[in-house]
Amino acid sequence: MPEGSKFMSECSNLICEGRPRAVGLLGGGVIGGGWAARFVLNGVHVRLYGPSPGAVERVRKILANARRAYRRLTVFPLPAEGTLTVVQSVADAVREVELVQESAPERLELKQQLLAEAGRAAAPGTLICSSTSRLRPSLLQAEMDHPERLLVAHPFHPVHLLPLVELCAGQSTAPDALVRAAQIYRSVGMHPLVVRKEVDGFIANRLQEAVWREALWLVHDDVATVQEVDDAARYSFGLRRPILGPMQTYRMAIPHQSARRAMELFGPSLKSGSSRLTEVPELTDGLLDKLAKQLDAQSENLTVPELEQKRDDCLVAMLQGLRGQGYSAGETLSRWEQGLRDRVLPLNNGPGPLRMPTQQMPSDWMDYNGQVTESCYVQLFGNATGTLLRYIGIDDEYRSKCGSYQMVESHLFHLRSLSAGERVQVLTQVLGADDKRLQLFHVLSRVGDEGPAATGEQMLLHVKAGTGRSGPVQGNVREKLLALARLHAELPRPDRAGASIELR
Amino acid sequence: MPEGSKFMSECSNLICEGRPRAVGLLGGGVIGGGWAARFVLNGVHVRLYGPSPGAVERVRKILANARRAYRRLTVFPLPAEGTLTVVQSVADAVREVELVQESAPERLELKQQLLAEAGRAAAPGTLICSSTSRLRPSLLQAEMDHPERLLVAHPFHPVHLLPLVELCAGQSTAPDALVRAAQIYRSVGMHPLVVRKEVDGFIANRLQEAVWREALWLVHDDVATVQEVDDAARYSFGLRRPILGPMQTYRMAIPHQSARRAMELFGPSLKSGSSRLTEVPELTDGLLDKLAKQLDAQSENLTVPELEQKRDDCLVAMLQGLRGQGYSAGETLSRWEQGLRDRVLPLNNGPGPLRMPTQQMPSDWMDYNGQVTESCYVQLFGNATGTLLRYIGIDDEYRSKCGSYQMVESHLFHLRSLSAGERVQVLTQVLGADDKRLQLFHVLSRVGDEGPAATGEQMLLHVKAGTGRSGPVQGNVREKLLALARLHAELPRPDRAGASIELR
Repeated sequence: MPEGSKFMSECSNLICEGRPRAVGLLGGGVIGGGWAARFVLNGVHVRLYGPSPGAVERVRKILANARRAYRRLTVFPLPAEGTLTVVQSVADAVREVELVQESAPERLELKQQLLAEAGRAAAPGTLICSSTSRLRPSLLQAEMDHPERLLVAHPFHPVHLLPLVELCAGQSTAPDALVRAAQIYRSVGMHPLVVRKEVDGFIANRLQEAVWREALWLVHDDVATVQEVDDAARYSFGLRRPILGPMQTYRMAIPHQSARRAMELFGPSLKSGSSRLTEVPELTDGLLDKLAKQLDAQSENLTVPELEQKRDDCLVAMLQGLRGQGYSAGETLSRWEQGLRDRVLPLNNGPGPLRMPTQQMPSDWMDYNGQVTESCYVQLFGNATGTLLRYIGIDDEYRSKCGSYQMVESHLFHLRSLSAGERVQVLTQVLGADDKRLQLFHVLSRVGDEGPAATGEQMLLHVKAGTGRSGPVQGNVREKLLALARLHAELPRPDRAGASIELR
Repeated sequence: MPEGSKFMSECSNLICEGRPRAVGLLGGGVIGGGWAARFVLNGVHVRLYGPSPGAVERVRKILANARRAYRRLTVFPLPAEGTLTVVQSVADAVREVELVQESAPERLELKQQLLAEAGRAAAPGTLICSSTSRLRPSLLQAEMDHPERLLVAHPFHPVHLLPLVELCAGQSTAPDALVRAAQIYRSVGMHPLVVRKEVDGFIANRLQEAVWREALWLVHDDVATVQEVDDAARYSFGLRRPILGPMQTYRMAIPHQSARRAMELFGPSLKSGSSRLTEVPELTDGLLDKLAKQLDAQSENLTVPELEQKRDDCLVAMLQGLRGQGYSAGETLSRWEQGLRDRVLPLNNGPGPLRMPTQQMPSDWMDYNGQVTESCYVQLFGNATGTLLRYIGIDDEYRSKCGSYQMVESHLFHLRSLSAGERVQVLTQVLGADDKRLQLFHVLSRVGDEGPAATGEQMLLHVKAGTGRSGPVQGNVREKLLALARLHAELPRPDRAGASIELR
């Protein structure tokens, strides 16, 4: 069976770096769709079994939204997308995959049955994970032939952007299964967290439920509307939340004392706690009406799909901010990008300029007038330069031993305005290179347009590792660069190369 | 009394735009210090009475940290700082201020006494607000001669960055006091939220306490360590929190149903809620030790002051991300910046180039090698151009009626490397101007250095409002620009003006 053996050999290669070749998804709801998006956009093939009505359409829509978010999430080119294959049975979904992810409705019997069926049909060694947010893994694995391969891997909505996945083993789970699952989720940009004991609701949802119960009381008692409750959270402790969890928040509220003393000082306030402890409000018709009315009013001018895009855009912007700080979820994003950055892209090596991957103009580089700002061009041309440098062999090793190129001069022309969402491409030509210097000319165009939207000419200098001073380019990188420069010397020189700014 | 009358006339001017001339702060702890920082950096004079040991030093430190954060928070120049005057009595703190903000320890009698004393010493009409996080305003105003001027204005730590302030009136509070307080807090970049009923803990802290109680149980029961609890929150729902409050979070979890149906569907899960409802864990020695040990381990490689800076840096980065989206706390920041943007700065009008305000290099424009990236220069020169355009009279009205300038070409030289925290200044020279075009030359230097660190030459084109096409500059703006161009024509032409990039 050639297909099978090819699969096995690819698979063994890929298990090394953690990223699976293919996964099987059971369930095509909001969570299953989020998993599909995360895997496909990370280059993993997905086999989807989603029996609920509208599942396929829903998943495709989630994937389209996620694609949009990922294009803005990172400046580095994403891997080639995995395929999304819709199948008609559990057995078909779990064939030749390294991981099965079940995201069916939260009914124990349904899940037990699906998982047992998946276990019988999957190859030995296939991991089987459940996305359940509340059912204990020991119950889920009760009906399985090989319960040792099952664990809970509970993600958060939207799965394609939130990094947490809570891993929880049942009584029969093999310890190795947790390790392999963590590798797989890490390889697609997630932060796996092992829950130390089997408890209902695991960790994050217990915290979240506590807030929600209190929020319901505040609305029930007319202390605040739904919008006011949300604003109170969003504009205060909620802003700290991606940075500081609940424990560190309280510790830092009393910065001048030891951690122990800080905890002790919060003791009395807990005792006289002001939140409602003991009750859950009855979801009467009256309370439901009130909630619904206020929720609808709150999002008056945005539909739920629009809100979802807004949420994703804000998440992307915050993740990028945190990445700049190398902290919290920004660290997870950095690690993932490191992998993207270090891939060497196959660029065309023919007679023309180097063709960079096409990309979509993001809206966060638009100015007040909806036009692209200079920073956007700087970023696009900077990326193209980065891609070219990787292409001639500048990697982490070269950087640490020999050095790299630094920008000394750049000249931009803004020629046509671009709008958010337009697909663009950069063509890059080496205008000249010697032992130390490298002169590049980038042309940015809308895909399908003839004329350029902007051009960028750059002069870079090779700087010796650790010195901050210029020094000659070395070894294979030098060879590859000079060969490229010779090839590009035969191209026509762009009109705007060597231009100067003048008010005639 | 000339000082007094000057004060009253300034005051009446300023009450129009909401920002007070001066405030009196009672209490120099973490909250009092945060208030001092927020007011001083927004150009408000502060009179501080902080009787606790080390208060003055602590407040100055908080102010220094906040100054650092604000320099990075916005690209627009901040107003001239207010003064910080340390006084020795309550009476001295509340003299000739529009607002008194009390941030003493949470003891009812202490606060009652301070507030009554402040009320007796303050001029009639002075607002008196308490930062209490849990005491009801009706109790706080019980001992006051003029209780109608008191309300609770509860902020969140760090006060200089988190926008929420919960306003809560007591039985005797005048309705007008709430309105005036909201104006004042809005003028210094905050989001005032009126709590509809007097309840212990108001809104946000009730939500926060509910999470904390649950978090303590998780650690107590060894389901997770302190770090794992924090990570579970930070990497999952915590990332959504600045965007979606608890109510909208649950609503959006079931996007394909109505709001009412979404609430109804979460009913059963609440009933079988997995979080601990009825108890508060006993803070035994054992639990305190465990908490302290884990908290210290969690921040192993960062001290609390370092963590505070990290927290502020992350908050700034996230706020900037949200501002780009014009959503949630980003909207609050935008509104505040609008005020900064529209101020016309007094620039020197002498024979030399225009001197832009000095500023500090932020660390979020540093690349992997700790060097300034091109985007940073683009931003600095872009700001200088913006300041020049405001200086020649381009404001919102001109933009909407006549148009504005757009960049068509720019040429950067990177000459010396800069590091985070260095103070820099931009000098801007008009190289030429005609009816449509404007050619500028910016020089960026480290303050105190002779040679430039970078130069930026720009060509801008005047674009007619609403057309996207070039058109002549109009009216007074034209006059002012041409006068400036004539003045600058007498300056020596910079060496690098009109240069072209060439590999000789």
